[in-house]
Amino acid sequence: MTLTTDTRHTRPVDRYPTRTAEPLAPFARTEPTVWGGRTGPIDPATLAAHDTHGYSRYDSLLSPAEVATFRAELDRLATDDAVRADERTVVERSSAEVRSIFEVHRTSELIAELVRDPRVLDRARQVLGSEVSVHQSRVNYMPGFHGKGFYWHSDFETWHAEDGMPSPRAVSMSIALTDNYPFNGGLMVLPGSQRTFVPCVGETPAEHYKASLTEQEIGVPSRAALSRLAAEHGVDQFTGTAGSALLFDSNLMHGSGNNITPFPRSNIFVVFNSVENALVEPYAAAAPRPGFIAARSAEPLAR
Amino acid sequence: MTLTTDTRHTRPVDRYPTRTAEPLAPFARTEPTVWGGRTGPIDPATLAAHDTHGYSRYDSLLSPAEVATFRAELDRLATDDAVRADERTVVERSSAEVRSIFEVHRTSELIAELVRDPRVLDRARQVLGSEVSVHQSRVNYMPGFHGKGFYWHSDFETWHAEDGMPSPRAVSMSIALTDNYPFNGGLMVLPGSQRTFVPCVGETPAEHYKASLTEQEIGVPSRAALSRLAAEHGVDQFTGTAGSALLFDSNLMHGSGNNITPFPRSNIFVVFNSVENALVEPYAAAAPRPGFIAARSAEPLAR
Repeated sequence: MTLTTDTRHTRPVDRYPTRTAEPLAPFARTEPTVWGGRTGPIDPATLAAHDTHGYSRYDSLLSPAEVATFRAELDRLATDDAVRADERTVVERSSAEVRSIFEVHRTSELIAELVRDPRVLDRARQVLGSEVSVHQSRVNYMPGFHGKGFYWHSDFETWHAEDGMPSPRAVSMSIALTDNYPFNGGLMVLPGSQRTFVPCVGETPAEHYKASLTEQEIGVPSRAALSRLAAEHGVDQFTGTAGSALLFDSNLMHGSGNNITPFPRSNIFVVFNSVENALVEPYAAAAPRPGFIAARSAEPLAR
Repeated sequence: MTLTTDTRHTRPVDRYPTRTAEPLAPFARTEPTVWGGRTGPIDPATLAAHDTHGYSRYDSLLSPAEVATFRAELDRLATDDAVRADERTVVERSSAEVRSIFEVHRTSELIAELVRDPRVLDRARQVLGSEVSVHQSRVNYMPGFHGKGFYWHSDFETWHAEDGMPSPRAVSMSIALTDNYPFNGGLMVLPGSQRTFVPCVGETPAEHYKASLTEQEIGVPSRAALSRLAAEHGVDQFTGTAGSALLFDSNLMHGSGNNITPFPRSNIFVVFNSVENALVEPYAAAAPRPGFIAARSAEPLAR
């Protein structure tokens, strides 16, 4: 990759323009989805499918006993007054319930261990073809009866615009700690959409992350772009029993519906970034988001 | 059935108390789900399953050509200025889009014909074991991207409280005019829940129907009751291609999630009531709802 310095902002040329005043057409990404060059626990067929669809699923990544251990850890965190008061904890306005806790790989020993577990870490290394660092970690709690969903978005669009991630050389692992049915607000993806970058319209407001963590408003793809991607690729849902995991590309378009069922959902979410994709200044925001949402330093993870 | 006159309200004794100030425990209903005594197009196995689960599905009830015809009719209705201005049309506040049109079996010749079609009418007669009348008819439009769902409810609870329907001897047919996926806000049901009546807390406000048609607030079952029913019965979703139909009991607990996918949903919805279950005064409301929402006269349907 040739880095041409943009002297205005001391960052590479922006190959993924977004948050523009006028709409830009979606375009094909240049980087691969699977970078290759490293062996790991993903078998060739699964890796090829990941390359095509932008995601791969792993049933029973965690054992039932491990699921129970991590569920107890999430209960402990959500009921700890110090954790609730921490700025890294997102509390839903209307219900006062904990919805997410960020940077848990630094505050929970169990989750610190999990992000270095070969079942997790070596899959990320294998897809990204390099050593990796944690860009973000969090645990999510979606309640039953009144669980809110997330509208369609590409994580990379946000990480590029607001965190200064140069390329979509990052991958997320979502590990379900509860059973995901088709009807309780699980993740929906547009398979194959990771190959298309969808620029979004509208400048990023200051401290946008405070609103965007509970409700997306800026960085929203157009309905026309979503319709085209869905018509081409359809919609896949991440369903499966507790302990299963979804590994998905940073630019995969995804979202989730609400959850009126009595079945709550919780998961552990870790974003791995290639150490060759270190953050620069944000491409479309006045200041980077806090480090607990988007780690500014890229320390390679090691066991 | 012995009708004991309640002299305060000139209506039979209320065997399904609801909208009370204090919570009442759920209890088993006394009436059957399938009344029997009439032959019809439903085969014995399907009828037995309907009796157990409170619903039955019919793939390709309408042919693809019929689906196209009815979709065109719905488009015509939704874009007709006179229809939009009619009090029987529900327009979503935030988007100004038509969400439902009531009493369409009186305003659309095509739908008037459909409710008398043997595929529809004779199934209702067969389940209810009698001649039937239309209690309510409507067409529903759920848009893509921002389709709102409906929280869990028993229709009978509302029809009993607000319309004066004595018994759950009524059945609804929902005919899909678009494909129902697991992820675009299709109907969810708690199978078997029709056998349990769940009284709801809270007095019915005046003209409650104006708010309740877009958002349920009163007549909402408790989370404890929903959790018990879902733990016992699970959740089923109504999925299938356009033209398929769901026939379900008036007391079946059902709801729907929102729809952020690009795939809109529309359907035709007809409620048949047994002519032996004619409405009386509302059991828990000051005045009955308008006739276009709940027909006060019980004329047996005939071809």
